[in-house]
Amino acid sequence: MSADDRRAPRPGDAPFTERTPRVVAARRLTRRAGRDRAERFLAEGAQAVREALAWAAAGRGRVHDLFVTPAAASRNPELVRDAVDAGVPVSSVTDKAAASLSETVTPQGLVAVCSLVDVPLKAALTPGVRLVAVLHGVADPGNAGTVARVADAAGVDAVIFAGDTVDPHNGKCVRASTGSVFHLPIARVRDADEVFAACREAGLRLVAADGYAEEDLVTADLRGDLTTPTAWVFGSEAHGLPDHVVATLDTALKVPIYGGAESLNLATAAAVCLYASARAQRA
Amino acid sequence: MSADDRRAPRPGDAPFTERTPRVVAARRLTRRAGRDRAERFLAEGAQAVREALAWAAAGRGRVHDLFVTPAAASRNPELVRDAVDAGVPVSSVTDKAAASLSETVTPQGLVAVCSLVDVPLKAALTPGVRLVAVLHGVADPGNAGTVARVADAAGVDAVIFAGDTVDPHNGKCVRASTGSVFHLPIARVRDADEVFAACREAGLRLVAADGYAEEDLVTADLRGDLTTPTAWVFGSEAHGLPDHVVATLDTALKVPIYGGAESLNLATAAAVCLYASARAQRA
Repeated sequence: MSADDRRAPRPGDAPFTERTPRVVAARRLTRRAGRDRAERFLAEGAQAVREALAWAAAGRGRVHDLFVTPAAASRNPELVRDAVDAGVPVSSVTDKAAASLSETVTPQGLVAVCSLVDVPLKAALTPGVRLVAVLHGVADPGNAGTVARVADAAGVDAVIFAGDTVDPHNGKCVRASTGSVFHLPIARVRDADEVFAACREAGLRLVAADGYAEEDLVTADLRGDLTTPTAWVFGSEAHGLPDHVVATLDTALKVPIYGGAESLNLATAAAVCLYASARAQRA
Repeated sequence: MSADDRRAPRPGDAPFTERTPRVVAARRLTRRAGRDRAERFLAEGAQAVREALAWAAAGRGRVHDLFVTPAAASRNPELVRDAVDAGVPVSSVTDKAAASLSETVTPQGLVAVCSLVDVPLKAALTPGVRLVAVLHGVADPGNAGTVARVADAAGVDAVIFAGDTVDPHNGKCVRASTGSVFHLPIARVRDADEVFAACREAGLRLVAADGYAEEDLVTADLRGDLTTPTAWVFGSEAHGLPDHVVATLDTALKVPIYGGAESLNLATAAAVCLYASARAQRA
């Protein structure tokens, strides 16, 4: 980084285009392979950039670059100043360059290049951990991000992306999490059995959220089962958890269905389960 | 309907194209003005069609037409037979005709033309009603449909689409509800004050779900406030409920945020609120 980078873009600067090497390099981060290779990802929009800067300021990661269109810069002068103050190179980009980095329908004109947020499993499952959300085979990034947001609201200690679950750094996941990927310890581990073993070792009871379970959440709660340190395991929206995974866990609970719906979607089921545990643990 | 319509499409039938008048008429139902004029809407996909047929069989509405591509007919022979048995005209359509009626990225090849599901407010708020969800100014059809699904799962007695809320018959809303628009009494009323007055008259306490409320759900629940007959009022994802609406209602409650998230999204907040009431009322 040259000293020249450490300032806000000025009116005379020629903005980066979609062909400028730094923009081309950043565009590779819209794909998982590119993110894994560079160990960086993109955070788009004022809220995500604000959270990224706070996360970096707390020493939990690093913001390597901030790309901003002139229009977005004039809408968010304080964010640009915060980035400059933090020593982040801020570069003016054309609308087209910003759009080339965007994974949304309406590009926000503001994209930060960040180091990856995930931490080792041991760092996520610290001693005294009480409530954890494990995603197993969740393929839809919007769903995964929404569950991370709910988990953050319910005060979980960590979120684990296990098995074939989508990359937490996927643009749609980051966006749906509305900043929560920057708040929480997030681990991603291909081998789900390794996750389950680590959860048990950390003293967590492994509970499958399973629409086909015999017992429901309310019955378990009334018996006092939800007060114990718990790792909730959530499966994919389309298929739920595979039977062989449910069989590995300590118990399975369903959200009771009082009306005519067949099921809840992943995020709403996670909200009911995680809030039930959060409340029981705080009572 | 001619007698000839009352049979499944046969191999020799020329399928309807996107220019066939009945398909052209059905395509107008992809727009709200067209639905309101014809008093009909479209239900797409095997699950929605199955729910529509069950709803019609229960005497709650009518299925006027079923359009099906050859591929979808061979995937769903029992649905086609059920429709024929119920006296619904079943017509073979080309893939292009089916796509012209679809509001999804991957057309399902199976679309039913149904009478509207909504009922008058008085019919939705029957005597003894205990739990109702009111949507106020919810603009996103996917969110509205997901809340209808959650409300159905939580066993609410009715869902009211109030004020500038999206049309419950919007294709994305029907899809996100996964059939719940056919299960529940749904009313739509432009004048929100009329809804609130009717809820009060039905003995319901009007509770705003409001992230800025002073009191939280758990505190209110522990005090026993959630056991009373309740109408939960939910605002838009983007703006929540306007202050002047919150001020009109009996009380406002927030879902407690135990972690770093700023808020929950509409559907997950509704899940936590409606399940808290459902549980308290059943305890």
